[in-house]
Amino acid sequence: MYIEKINSPTDLKTLTTDEMKVLASEIRDGLMNRLSKKGGHFGPNFGFVEATIAMHYVFNSPRDKFVFDVSHQSYTHKMLTGRKDAYLYDEHFSDISGYTNPEESEHDFFNVGHTSTSVSLACGLAKGRDLVGGKENIVAVIGDGSLSGGEALEGIDFASELESNFIIVVNDNDMSIAENHGGLYKNLKALRESDGICECNLFKAMGLDYMYVAEGNNIEKLIEAFAKVKDTDHPTVVHICTQKGKGYEPAETNKENWHWCMPFDTETGKSKFTGGGEDYGTMTCDYLLDKMKKDERVVALVAAVPVCIGFTEDKRKQAGKQFVDVGICEEHAVAMASGIAKNGGKPVFATHSSFFQRTYDQISQDLCVNGNSATLLVNTGSVYGMNDVTHLGIYDIPMMSNIPNLVYLAPTSCEEYFAMLDWSIEQDKYPVAVRIPCNGVIHTDKEIDTDYSNLNKYKVTQNGKNIAVIALGDFYQIGGAVAKMIEEKTGAAPTLINPRYITGLDEELLESLKKNHTKVITLEDGILDGGFGEKIARFYGPTDVKVYNYGLKKEFIDRYDVNEVLIRNRITPELICEDVL
Amino acid sequence: MYIEKINSPTDLKTLTTDEMKVLASEIRDGLMNRLSKKGGHFGPNFGFVEATIAMHYVFNSPRDKFVFDVSHQSYTHKMLTGRKDAYLYDEHFSDISGYTNPEESEHDFFNVGHTSTSVSLACGLAKGRDLVGGKENIVAVIGDGSLSGGEALEGIDFASELESNFIIVVNDNDMSIAENHGGLYKNLKALRESDGICECNLFKAMGLDYMYVAEGNNIEKLIEAFAKVKDTDHPTVVHICTQKGKGYEPAETNKENWHWCMPFDTETGKSKFTGGGEDYGTMTCDYLLDKMKKDERVVALVAAVPVCIGFTEDKRKQAGKQFVDVGICEEHAVAMASGIAKNGGKPVFATHSSFFQRTYDQISQDLCVNGNSATLLVNTGSVYGMNDVTHLGIYDIPMMSNIPNLVYLAPTSCEEYFAMLDWSIEQDKYPVAVRIPCNGVIHTDKEIDTDYSNLNKYKVTQNGKNIAVIALGDFYQIGGAVAKMIEEKTGAAPTLINPRYITGLDEELLESLKKNHTKVITLEDGILDGGFGEKIARFYGPTDVKVYNYGLKKEFIDRYDVNEVLIRNRITPELICEDVL
Repeated sequence: MYIEKINSPTDLKTLTTDEMKVLASEIRDGLMNRLSKKGGHFGPNFGFVEATIAMHYVFNSPRDKFVFDVSHQSYTHKMLTGRKDAYLYDEHFSDISGYTNPEESEHDFFNVGHTSTSVSLACGLAKGRDLVGGKENIVAVIGDGSLSGGEALEGIDFASELESNFIIVVNDNDMSIAENHGGLYKNLKALRESDGICECNLFKAMGLDYMYVAEGNNIEKLIEAFAKVKDTDHPTVVHICTQKGKGYEPAETNKENWHWCMPFDTETGKSKFTGGGEDYGTMTCDYLLDKMKKDERVVALVAAVPVCIGFTEDKRKQAGKQFVDVGICEEHAVAMASGIAKNGGKPVFATHSSFFQRTYDQISQDLCVNGNSATLLVNTGSVYGMNDVTHLGIYDIPMMSNIPNLVYLAPTSCEEYFAMLDWSIEQDKYPVAVRIPCNGVIHTDKEIDTDYSNLNKYKVTQNGKNIAVIALGDFYQIGGAVAKMIEEKTGAAPTLINPRYITGLDEELLESLKKNHTKVITLEDGILDGGFGEKIARFYGPTDVKVYNYGLKKEFIDRYDVNEVLIRNRITPELICEDVL
Repeated sequence: MYIEKINSPTDLKTLTTDEMKVLASEIRDGLMNRLSKKGGHFGPNFGFVEATIAMHYVFNSPRDKFVFDVSHQSYTHKMLTGRKDAYLYDEHFSDISGYTNPEESEHDFFNVGHTSTSVSLACGLAKGRDLVGGKENIVAVIGDGSLSGGEALEGIDFASELESNFIIVVNDNDMSIAENHGGLYKNLKALRESDGICECNLFKAMGLDYMYVAEGNNIEKLIEAFAKVKDTDHPTVVHICTQKGKGYEPAETNKENWHWCMPFDTETGKSKFTGGGEDYGTMTCDYLLDKMKKDERVVALVAAVPVCIGFTEDKRKQAGKQFVDVGICEEHAVAMASGIAKNGGKPVFATHSSFFQRTYDQISQDLCVNGNSATLLVNTGSVYGMNDVTHLGIYDIPMMSNIPNLVYLAPTSCEEYFAMLDWSIEQDKYPVAVRIPCNGVIHTDKEIDTDYSNLNKYKVTQNGKNIAVIALGDFYQIGGAVAKMIEEKTGAAPTLINPRYITGLDEELLESLKKNHTKVITLEDGILDGGFGEKIARFYGPTDVKVYNYGLKKEFIDRYDVNEVLIRNRITPELICEDVL
C-alpha cells in the first residue's frame, strides 16, 4: 500500500500519476474505514481526494500554505500530512479532530469549522507574507456552497487588492449541504456548461484571474492546472468541478443525506444509528407544516441546514413557497425575516446556536432596533449540543440575551417549547428567540401557559423556603434534582422556579423571595460570563440574599464529555448541595 | 417655491419635469440650510436629489416601499414625505433623525444606520408581500460603497430567488466614505465605461436582470428607467451613476471630506468646528506611523472608516503597504487580521464599537478560537460616543468580553491607552482589544505599566477601607469623584481600583478586599446586562460583601443627552453616594 509509506507530502512527490490513482483508492478505503465506524463528513471528503493529492504534489506544504473552508473536506490532507493512522486504524480514531487543527500538524494553519472563512483567512496569510518578504504560495480552498456566505464574498471581492501570489481553489460539486440557493449558482452553471469560457463570470467580475478545470477528480488535469498557477504573482481562481461523494454509490446518488453520516453498514449504506423516538427536528417541522396550512403568512427560513428543524426534501416540497432555504447566509436570513414580519408575514428562522454568531449585527440592527416580530429558533444551544470547538452552543445566552428588545425564551419541556413557539408566531409585538431544548424530548403533564406577552414573569413550580432554585431551560431538570436533594438534606423544601425568560428579571418575584429565602441558586446551560445568573447576582448584590451561580466556565472546549464538563463546573445536585448547604 | 407645497409625494406628481428641476434646486437649498447649521451626511444627499424625486414621481409611496441603505441619502425622501420643515426651518431641525425612521413617517419602513442591509430587508418586504398576495413595488436603494459588505452581497445573491417584483437601485457615485476597495469596483468601472453593456457584469453573474442609467442626476432619464421597471415581475438592478456632493463645488471636489460634515460657512465651505486640541484619532495614527517605520510587520487595517484612527489621505500614503482599507467588510477585516498575525505580521484593526457588531463570529471563530495575536481597536465604545440609535457604543462590553481567549482592555488615560496598544502590538500570545477612551484626552503623570501579560491584574490606585470603587475605563474619573465624595461624607477613604481588564476577574484582589471592605461599587461605560460589574456581583454572590453595579440600562436610546442618561441611570457621585451610604 502506498498510503502506508506516506508520512509527509514529500513521500507523495516520488509517485507517478498512476500510482497516485491507486493512492486515491487507498485513501477512499481509509476514509470509508473511519466514516463507517465513527461518522463524519462523507461527501465533501470523497469528492476532494484527487484535488488534495494534486495540491500536495504541486505545492510544498507547509511552506506553501493551504486554508480549507469549513475544513470538512480536509481528511485527505490529514492523511497525507502524517495523520493517516487516524483513518486506517480504529485505535487511532481519536487522535484527530474532524477539522483542520494547528495543534495536530504544522500543515494546518487554523482551527476552522464555520463556513465561508477560508479566503479571508488566507488573504491574511498572504498579507503577512508580503509584509515580511516571504515568497510562499497561499492557497484557499472553498466549496461552491460556501460562496454565498457574506464573509466569503467579502474575501473574494477583497482578494484582487492583493498584488501578489494568491490562489483560490473553488471546489464546485454543485451542492451545498442540500441544494444551492442564490443567483451566483446560475453563473457557476453557465461556467460549467461553457467549459469556463462564458463572458459573464462572477470571479472576473470580482477582479480575479480565472482558470477552469472540468475534471476535478482527474489527478493529471489538476496537477497541470495547479502547476500553472504556482508561484504566479497575482490572485487567481481555479474553478474545479468535483463529484460530491465520488467513489461510493449511495453517496453519489443521494448527496444531501451523505453530506455528513452517522456510522453505517458499508455494504448497504444503511445507518447504524437506530436512535428513533421523538426528536425536536421532526416535531418542529410537522408543527410548522400544520401551521402553514392554516395560515399562508407563516414561512420557515433556514440557512443551508434545513434538517436542523426537520425539513427533509419531501417536507420542503410540502411547504412550497412557505419554506425558504436562503443558502449559507445567516445575515441575509435574519434581515429578511425582519422584512417579512414588517410586511405582514410570520417568519421563523432556525439555525444552530453557533451559526447565530454569524448574524449578531442583523439581530441587533435589522431586527431588534426595528422591533419586528420575527421568530428565531436556536438549535443545539446547549452543552448537550455539538462538541467540536467550532460548533459549541454555550455562548448564545451572553451573545443574544443582552441585545435590547429581544425576548429570548428557554422552555423546559416539549409542551412548553411548542407553546412558546406558537405564541411567538402569533404575536406581533416582539422579536422573539426560542432555545430549542437539547436534553431530550421531555414531556410534562402540568398545565403550560400559552400567553407569554406579560414579559419576564417567572413560573414558581414549587413553593418553599430558605433556598430558591432558579433553573433555566435545559438545566431545569437538574434544578429539580437539586431541590429534591436540598429537601432531603435539610428537611425543608426549597422554592423551585422556571424563569422561562432569559432576557429579563422578574423583579417582583425576586423581591418577594427576600422575605423567607436567604440563598438563591441559579442554573443555566451555557457559560456564566454575561449570562442569566449574573443578572440575578446583580439584583441581589446590595442585599443579604446570597447568590450561587451555576453554569459553564468561559472557555473554548473541544470534543468534550458532557458529564466531565458538568462535574468540572460543579453542576450536579451533590456538588451544588456541597457548596450551598 | 414648489417645496413649500409638497406635503406628500402626491403633490409631486402634478409637476412637470422642468418644475421638478426647480424643485431639485430648492431641495438642495433646504439641505444646505440644515447641513450648514447642524451638520450631517452631505455628499450622499446632494448626489441623490434627482433620483429621489424620480422615484417618488414614478412609484406610489408608501404603497410602493423604498428601503434606503444606511439611509444617509434619505434626506430628500424625508423632504418629499411631509418632513420638509426639518430642513427649511431651524426651529424644526430636531423633529427628525438623520436616518429613516418608521416613527416619523409611514413612508419609512426601517430604522437603518449600518451599511449593506437594504437589499436583505427589502427582500423580506417582497417575500412578505408575496405571502399575503400584495402587488406593490419593492425598491431597495444601495450605494456602490455598501456593495462590498457581506450582508449586501448575500442579499443580492439571494434576490434572484424571488420570482416577483423587486428593484435594486444601485446608486454608483464611485466613492465609499473614502475611495472604494475591492475587485467589484473594477467591474462597476467597466460597466460605466461601456455604458452598461460589457458582458462581464457582477449583477448578471448574481442572476439579476440589469439596466444602466449613465445620467443619474437627470430626472427625465431616471423617470424613464424607473417607469420601465415598475410593476415588472422579477428582480432587476437599475444601476445609476450619480455625482456625490452634486451642486456644491467644495463637496464635488473633495468627496471624502464632504461625505459627512460639521456645521460650516456656506460661502467658504469652512467648518465652524474649531474644537482643536488633542484627539485620539490623530494621536493613534501618528503613533502607528512611527511604529510602522520601525517595524515593517506592523499594519493598520480599517473597514472604510480610515479617519476613525486618523488616517487621512496623506497619512494613508505615508503608511503605504502598511495601511489597508478593506472597504466596507468588517468580517473580512477581522479574519484577515487573524491570518496576518498567523503569518508573522502585527495587525491593528480599528473601527467603531457599533460596527464591531458586524463581525462577532469572526472575532470568536477566526480570531479567538485560533488565539492569534491581532489587535482590535474599539472606537466610540462609550456613552460619550455617537448617539444615534443605530450607532450606539454601549453594547460592545457584553458582546466582546464574553468571548473566550480575547483580552479586552479599558484604559483610563492617554498614557495607559498607548501603553496597552503598544503591549498588544508587541506580544504574540493573545487576541487583544483595546477600548479607545472617549471621554476626552486625559493625561496622567502617574507611572503606567507597560506589560499587561500578567492577565487580569487590577491596579489599586488608592488604598482605603470599608468601600471599594472598581471603576472601568472611561468611568474611572467618575469613580475617582465617587471615592472622594465617600471620603468627605464618611471620613474614611475608600479603595479605588482601575481594573484595566474587562475580560477577567482579579480573584486574588477581590478575595483580599473581603478583609476590610463591606461594599463594592462597580462602574462601567456601557450597559450593565452581560457586562463587567455583573461578574463582580457573581464573585461576591455567596459572600457578605454587598455589590452595587453602575452602568446603563439595556435599551436602545436615540439622540440622547449624555448627562440625562447618566442621571437616569444614577451615575453621578451624588446619586451613587445616596444609594450606597
